[in-house]
Amino acid sequence: MRERLTLPPADEVVEYLFKPRALAFIERDFRLMMWVNQAHVLMLVRQGILTRDVGHSLIHALRELEQEGAEGLTLDPHLEDLYFNLEHALIAKVGMDVGGRMHTGRSRNDLGATMTRLAVREALVDFLGLQLGLRACLLEKAAEHTETVMPGYTHLQPAQPTTFGHYLASVALALERDAQRLLDVYPRLNLNPLGACAFAGTGFPIDRAMTAQWLGFDGIVDSTLDAVASRDYVSELLAAMAIMGVTLSRLAQDLYLWCSGEWGTVEVADDVAMTSSIMPQKKNPITLEHIKAKAGHLLGAVVASLAAQKAVNFMHCSDMWEAVAPLWDAFAQAQGVLHLTRRTVLGLQVNQTLMLERATQDFSTATELADVLVREKDLPFRMAHGIVGSLVARVLQQGLPWRAVTSTMIDDCAREVIGHALSLSDEQVDRALDPLRNLAGKHAAGSPSAPETQRLISRARDQLARQQRTVEAWQARPQQARHALDRELAAQQLT
Amino acid sequence: MRERLTLPPADEVVEYLFKPRALAFIERDFRLMMWVNQAHVLMLVRQGILTRDVGHSLIHALRELEQEGAEGLTLDPHLEDLYFNLEHALIAKVGMDVGGRMHTGRSRNDLGATMTRLAVREALVDFLGLQLGLRACLLEKAAEHTETVMPGYTHLQPAQPTTFGHYLASVALALERDAQRLLDVYPRLNLNPLGACAFAGTGFPIDRAMTAQWLGFDGIVDSTLDAVASRDYVSELLAAMAIMGVTLSRLAQDLYLWCSGEWGTVEVADDVAMTSSIMPQKKNPITLEHIKAKAGHLLGAVVASLAAQKAVNFMHCSDMWEAVAPLWDAFAQAQGVLHLTRRTVLGLQVNQTLMLERATQDFSTATELADVLVREKDLPFRMAHGIVGSLVARVLQQGLPWRAVTSTMIDDCAREVIGHALSLSDEQVDRALDPLRNLAGKHAAGSPSAPETQRLISRARDQLARQQRTVEAWQARPQQARHALDRELAAQQLT
Amino acid sequence: MRERLTLPPADEVVEYLFKPRALAFIERDFRLMMWVNQAHVLMLVRQGILTRDVGHSLIHALRELEQEGAEGLTLDPHLEDLYFNLEHALIAKVGMDVGGRMHTGRSRNDLGATMTRLAVREALVDFLGLQLGLRACLLEKAAEHTETVMPGYTHLQPAQPTTFGHYLASVALALERDAQRLLDVYPRLNLNPLGACAFAGTGFPIDRAMTAQWLGFDGIVDSTLDAVASRDYVSELLAAMAIMGVTLSRLAQDLYLWCSGEWGTVEVADDVAMTSSIMPQKKNPITLEHIKAKAGHLLGAVVASLAAQKAVNFMHCSDMWEAVAPLWDAFAQAQGVLHLTRRTVLGLQVNQTLMLERATQDFSTATELADVLVREKDLPFRMAHGIVGSLVARVLQQGLPWRAVTSTMIDDCAREVIGHALSLSDEQVDRALDPLRNLAGKHAAGSPSAPETQRLISRARDQLARQQRTVEAWQARPQQARHALDRELAAQQLT
Amino acid sequence: MRERLTLPPADEVVEYLFKPRALAFIERDFRLMMWVNQAHVLMLVRQGILTRDVGHSLIHALRELEQEGAEGLTLDPHLEDLYFNLEHALIAKVGMDVGGRMHTGRSRNDLGATMTRLAVREALVDFLGLQLGLRACLLEKAAEHTETVMPGYTHLQPAQPTTFGHYLASVALALERDAQRLLDVYPRLNLNPLGACAFAGTGFPIDRAMTAQWLGFDGIVDSTLDAVASRDYVSELLAAMAIMGVTLSRLAQDLYLWCSGEWGTVEVADDVAMTSSIMPQKKNPITLEHIKAKAGHLLGAVVASLAAQKAVNFMHCSDMWEAVAPLWDAFAQAQGVLHLTRRTVLGLQVNQTLMLERATQDFSTATELADVLVREKDLPFRMAHGIVGSLVARVLQQGLPWRAVTSTMIDDCAREVIGHALSLSDEQVDRALDPLRNLAGKHAAGSPSAPETQRLISRARDQLARQQRTVEAWQARPQQARHALDRELAAQQLT
Repeated sequence: MRERLTLPPADEVVEYLFKPRALAFIERDFRLMMWVNQAHVLMLVRQGILTRDVGHSLIHALRELEQEGAEGLTLDPHLEDLYFNLEHALIAKVGMDVGGRMHTGRSRNDLGATMTRLAVREALVDFLGLQLGLRACLLEKAAEHTETVMPGYTHLQPAQPTTFGHYLASVALALERDAQRLLDVYPRLNLNPLGACAFAGTGFPIDRAMTAQWLGFDGIVDSTLDAVASRDYVSELLAAMAIMGVTLSRLAQDLYLWCSGEWGTVEVADDVAMTSSIMPQKKNPITLEHIKAKAGHLLGAVVASLAAQKAVNFMHCSDMWEAVAPLWDAFAQAQGVLHLTRRTVLGLQVNQTLMLERATQDFSTATELADVLVREKDLPFRMAHGIVGSLVARVLQQGLPWRAVTSTMIDDCAREVIGHALSLSDEQVDRALDPLRNLAGKHAAGSPSAPETQRLISRARDQLARQQRTVEAWQARPQQARHALDRELAAQQLT
Repeated sequence: MRERLTLPPADEVVEYLFKPRALAFIERDFRLMMWVNQAHVLMLVRQGILTRDVGHSLIHALRELEQEGAEGLTLDPHLEDLYFNLEHALIAKVGMDVGGRMHTGRSRNDLGATMTRLAVREALVDFLGLQLGLRACLLEKAAEHTETVMPGYTHLQPAQPTTFGHYLASVALALERDAQRLLDVYPRLNLNPLGACAFAGTGFPIDRAMTAQWLGFDGIVDSTLDAVASRDYVSELLAAMAIMGVTLSRLAQDLYLWCSGEWGTVEVADDVAMTSSIMPQKKNPITLEHIKAKAGHLLGAVVASLAAQKAVNFMHCSDMWEAVAPLWDAFAQAQGVLHLTRRTVLGLQVNQTLMLERATQDFSTATELADVLVREKDLPFRMAHGIVGSLVARVLQQGLPWRAVTSTMIDDCAREVIGHALSLSDEQVDRALDPLRNLAGKHAAGSPSAPETQRLISRARDQLARQQRTVEAWQARPQQARHALDRELAAQQLT
Repeated sequence: MRERLTLPPADEVVEYLFKPRALAFIERDFRLMMWVNQAHVLMLVRQGILTRDVGHSLIHALRELEQEGAEGLTLDPHLEDLYFNLEHALIAKVGMDVGGRMHTGRSRNDLGATMTRLAVREALVDFLGLQLGLRACLLEKAAEHTETVMPGYTHLQPAQPTTFGHYLASVALALERDAQRLLDVYPRLNLNPLGACAFAGTGFPIDRAMTAQWLGFDGIVDSTLDAVASRDYVSELLAAMAIMGVTLSRLAQDLYLWCSGEWGTVEVADDVAMTSSIMPQKKNPITLEHIKAKAGHLLGAVVASLAAQKAVNFMHCSDMWEAVAPLWDAFAQAQGVLHLTRRTVLGLQVNQTLMLERATQDFSTATELADVLVREKDLPFRMAHGIVGSLVARVLQQGLPWRAVTSTMIDDCAREVIGHALSLSDEQVDRALDPLRNLAGKHAAGSPSAPETQRLISRARDQLARQQRTVEAWQARPQQARHALDRELAAQQLT
Repeated sequence: MRERLTLPPADEVVEYLFKPRALAFIERDFRLMMWVNQAHVLMLVRQGILTRDVGHSLIHALRELEQEGAEGLTLDPHLEDLYFNLEHALIAKVGMDVGGRMHTGRSRNDLGATMTRLAVREALVDFLGLQLGLRACLLEKAAEHTETVMPGYTHLQPAQPTTFGHYLASVALALERDAQRLLDVYPRLNLNPLGACAFAGTGFPIDRAMTAQWLGFDGIVDSTLDAVASRDYVSELLAAMAIMGVTLSRLAQDLYLWCSGEWGTVEVADDVAMTSSIMPQKKNPITLEHIKAKAGHLLGAVVASLAAQKAVNFMHCSDMWEAVAPLWDAFAQAQGVLHLTRRTVLGLQVNQTLMLERATQDFSTATELADVLVREKDLPFRMAHGIVGSLVARVLQQGLPWRAVTSTMIDDCAREVIGHALSLSDEQVDRALDPLRNLAGKHAAGSPSAPETQRLISRARDQLARQQRTVEAWQARPQQARHALDRELAAQQLT
């Protein structure tokens, strides 16, 4: 098939270009190519481009080759790529007069573009399954901990009391958007490029919508040029994965701190920890380190893919093959991240006593105290803030715990700042300083009070279920399409 | 307001942190902050958290400050940020007892998150307007050139005839997906974080949905933590812009080659060209170079933002401010790209004669000749390909133009490859070799025949109109919300 | 000068391309261009290409323009760029017959490449001064804390005792390599592109080495094409800055944790902290957050620059202007990082008591205990590790502090693991468990014992001084070159 | 060795963390670990930390294991990593009392850091060999083509005549800097981290300089913390590779255009071209596409590595393992790029006739004509530029080739622009318009005249030879070190 060229491919070309593609073929593409081939042949027969006899022989031979599998194929890298190897094997089986007709009305360009979309579709749908699974696990943990009080932080300094459940539910909600971005890729991805041929379509009366249907596509990529020139669905998929990777790196960073000796509020299970070869006491939460770091890999993959496409002519070319290449490692890395996060979260031990102790002893409830002054004493918020600010400074200076604050101490500050005492009752002071009572009053939508957290979790579960139904439908789709193809092959007496 | 701290901000902090924020404030945030303030005060009054009197004084003072503008505000960088400066000015105007109450039930954290979303929303909607405008321009050019035949390329080698119109329509379709990705960001962006306060909501009976409505949001960010901790809408916006930048770099690369002396099929207008200080003949298409290169800047912005967020604790913190920072320059760069592309395309001169000549003289129609052998002589495609392959090699060897091919030459090759002649008629040979007739036969969906290209353009215009309607609705939305706020302020007798 | 073109630049071109360049010109390039112009004119006179009279008039006029400054120049953006504006002003001053001769034997291409190198050289040398200053500050702090014992971490778990001084000295040593990479750029940067003209040199008998000397360059960029086509020194500079940014983000991350409430071993000064608008107790270490995040910006700048250059023809073109553009913001960001880090470290308060307490109570000395078993009882290391491993597990189970370990407890474990007791003396146990004595024994090169840390600091200071001398020489160089130019201008009677 | 932990590693941990490391171990690390082990044991014996008997048994067993190879080792992933597997095998061979002593005075942390440096050193030195080989090939081609005239471009528009040789030599000079950056990494890389142990050194009287010597290191990483915490040499290596990738993408982009049908000035050999499955005429220069695109992958690897390190605590941790991981694929990609570039350049066919024709017919010599007016008629350059500018416009308008310009035509323009004729002789006009004579006059240093190009090539070859000698010394170094180790082992009677 290299009639035009007088030399076989150079060793370097075989080693650095054809071999990597051959590996991909065996792992992913062979099975998909056989599917596409059969859909294409069936369409050619239905459109009268091939006779039923030729179609029958082709389908028969293709099914034999499919049965034998990629391993059954002798792969000669000098035949450029796997398609040529397969066609070669096909012609060896059924002769040139039949085998030489399969490629009518298409090209390796649209065939390749089609296989890539099929492979990415499979990988994406599987990946979404994992992502949804992780969120289910986070929401379950969150539901267990809607009343597990802990300090909440801004700028990593204790800010106000919150719960471990509210924290986990909030992360799950961020991951819901991450999933939605992945879902958004699907309609742009699940379109049929087949029939675009080299890029300019064909004069044969092919029907692109017909093959779309048997391959489980939602429609066709409209322009034949766009169909072979564009891989932007890969770029956006990589971007969505990188953003998700960053969300998970943030969760991992929190858990990483919290299982330090200094925090000590959570502990990872032994089965995700690593020990030391010389420090007998060590229990290292290495999964969290890998989760953090792999966000970097995912970001690298976006760059690799987009930089490969930058300033490439808008046409079919090998640069686009390279633009897709980073996706497969990115899927593997991101899968690892999801599995490792899920496993780590599942086994997490939570030190509720210590969490509550910290939330009580630090200054987390200072804001609530200011709010109480506003509500009970009708102070302007800024004035209440000023009084409590002085109080905090005084407590710190005296080395007291925040819980030691009394109504008298508040009055001392109030006199200093606004010129008169406020005489809060002990009950009022206690209501402000007790993180549990403080939290209970947080009625604003989405706040960390237990009822609001439960509402968040319930809302997140609804949305998860909705996404789950979509993903399940997509998971079933390819097989349904393949069955439809098989039925039609039988109906056309081609099998 | 820095009661807790005994030292003013260091010079370095003022110079490298507070000043850049102050600039942003004056340019973008002041106007938005005044809007948020009024919506917040109105809600506080409606919820009974502030009295109507206090509300009235606050609104009155805020409107005065709004009138005076950002320039009217004395900005003391030692007051940390602009919010404190504004509150300071407010209190100076109406006294602590009124001014000190505005900040009840919120925090700078949610206020900042809200202003950022409002500012990004505005910028995104404007940007979409530009993007749609560019596509309208490309589709108009495409419609003018549905019969402008030129060589189509794969691997930058002439492949098959196509038209300039089909090329432009295909790029416009790729840009349609680029716009759709930008549109997809909107529902995740246009949600209200206000009321999240520091991150843990509040015990005041605020109504987050109410302010959402007056600020033109579609709803609230559910979790109060997520509301202040997450900026993933910025990351995805940057990713969508970078992907669009790459699409445009590919268009630019094509035009760049085509206006080289060697290609010469298009020429940019003088008003987008630059001359040389020493080479009198030069006319340099510099806009295309900048368009290509700025794709790199957009990619850099994605990296800057995501790397800034990597492994940051899931909470409110200044890292998130830095994660947003690259967006503004990215908008400016991407706007430049859209403007420059539009202007360059608008003025493009197309050398139709040369395009057709090239498409005729090169080997673009070889595939069609093979297809003719398949259709007319019932050869298997692979065999036809083999014959034409030999023919091409022979023509190249003899230094003939492709158009010189005759039926006899085909027969010579056929005899060599398959052992017998094929005796195509002159008419059949001509039909294959004439790029115009060749193209006319490309009936497959999305092919470059004129009718199919017109169908593509028409479909692209429908979709453009649909996106346009969405964008227009979004453009009108903020003003409608602001009017509703004003009406309600009046109804509540606060103005 | 746009004789060849019939239209003035389009508004979009002026707005998005010429204006940004004009700003750069006024800020950075004007002064440098005047310097280059005078060096070039002097060389033309010395080489006999211009007469002394013409040279005298040109130099006189240039010095007038230099005096008037960039502000004195009327900038017409329609004259494409600032060079044309300047030449225009020059011709207005001295007439075409003199002013029209200045550009002999050069082009805007090499002129631009030269100004960029001069500007980058200045910025780099200043930046190195800052970087070295930060290290001096870190080493001073390190020297104060060579005996400030604290827990050392691996995987963020307490591992072995170390000192704050050893920690800071180690970071300073990493920053030494970061500086060395920046220094390595200089010899590749400080070469003269002038005389490359458009890219192909010139037939005028210019002397490129001569201008190199008066501009303070170490030599010429050998190839005239390479001189205008390459900006790889910018890429490597950005990479070196990004790597340094990452080093500092790691230092910031450590300090960030250590000043959390849970760690509490360091505290930032009030003048680098920010407060909260609603939480009266807050003291937020925001400089550390910005330092972390800005590493992301620096990484984005590398990507922006390299992606802009990817697949650009090897020639002079505007893509290269865009490849340089991210450098200026990167310098600003990186300067901010250095200033903020220095200020934050300078004011850092260290809680030595708490550090020592932590190092004593956690299991940091478990490894030393195993080592003592090896040294004193001649156990194989792996066996000693096994015994101490059991001991740690037991202590944890019993909820004891590590310091409570006794010889008897060790014997219990030893009997279990190796079948017999070891009977360590109390003194031996104490030597192992006391972090101070433990550290004192760390004699291996570069270990955290005080003497080894002092040796590290002293070695780092030597290297700092060496780098300092280099940087100072580079700082003096431009002025020396300019003086030499002025002297020669006088000697040639051109001033 | 996981005494402290009660659970075996989870399946996810084995699958996603331990398995990838195990693969790396078998491929790269086993051999290196055996080397390090022997150097370490020898040092322990020489320092009196182990007895000669123990040392002898250990060395004997290690050599047996070395002989058996990585395949001989039963790898139990539940033993965490390969070091534990190896120690396990060692203890199985020689018993705990001997085998348990090997790990005295070190840790997996410094061992891992050491193996990584050794592996990277090997890979870097090999890679440099390839890089230098490519440059030798480019310089040879350049030397063949110092008189092969072709149009030179700026902004992809014909600018001035140059030669193919000058072009290739210029690219080779850019690649010289790319190599120098890779060479600059070596002194920072080739330092010994061994003896840093977990990060805090050890109380055993080890000698780090001694193992450095037997492992071929130039010295030690001074700080024990820095030794295990830093991998910046990986980041800078990746950056240097990415910069080189971009240089090669630019060369590839030029060749890619030049072998288009429209340019046609070069043609790639058949053995690096790919054909089409449907277009019989196609000969696709795919290697150039892959070379361009792989620059994107290398840029992605920089980002992956630096983003993985961003904001990681300055200590030993698994994030650093992830920061190194992208290096291995980057080496493979960059090697592919070097091989493919070399092969493509080697087989390049150059159409010298067409190149010269283009350089003659386009306006490349217009600048020289202006220079002739300056030199021969003493016009100011700007005035000469104006006249030639008018001339170019006129020639274009009349559709004439540039070579048709006559003295009369010049005078017509001169009269128009400056009011009088110039009366150039035919010889003067011809000298200006003939690209060969034009080039011959380019005497300025580094210009494309043949003698200057030869000087450039000769200078580049000197520098190549210098780099070559350095690389060869580095190539020999490890084996010399290993021999020294073997000799000393024998001298100490340990073998």
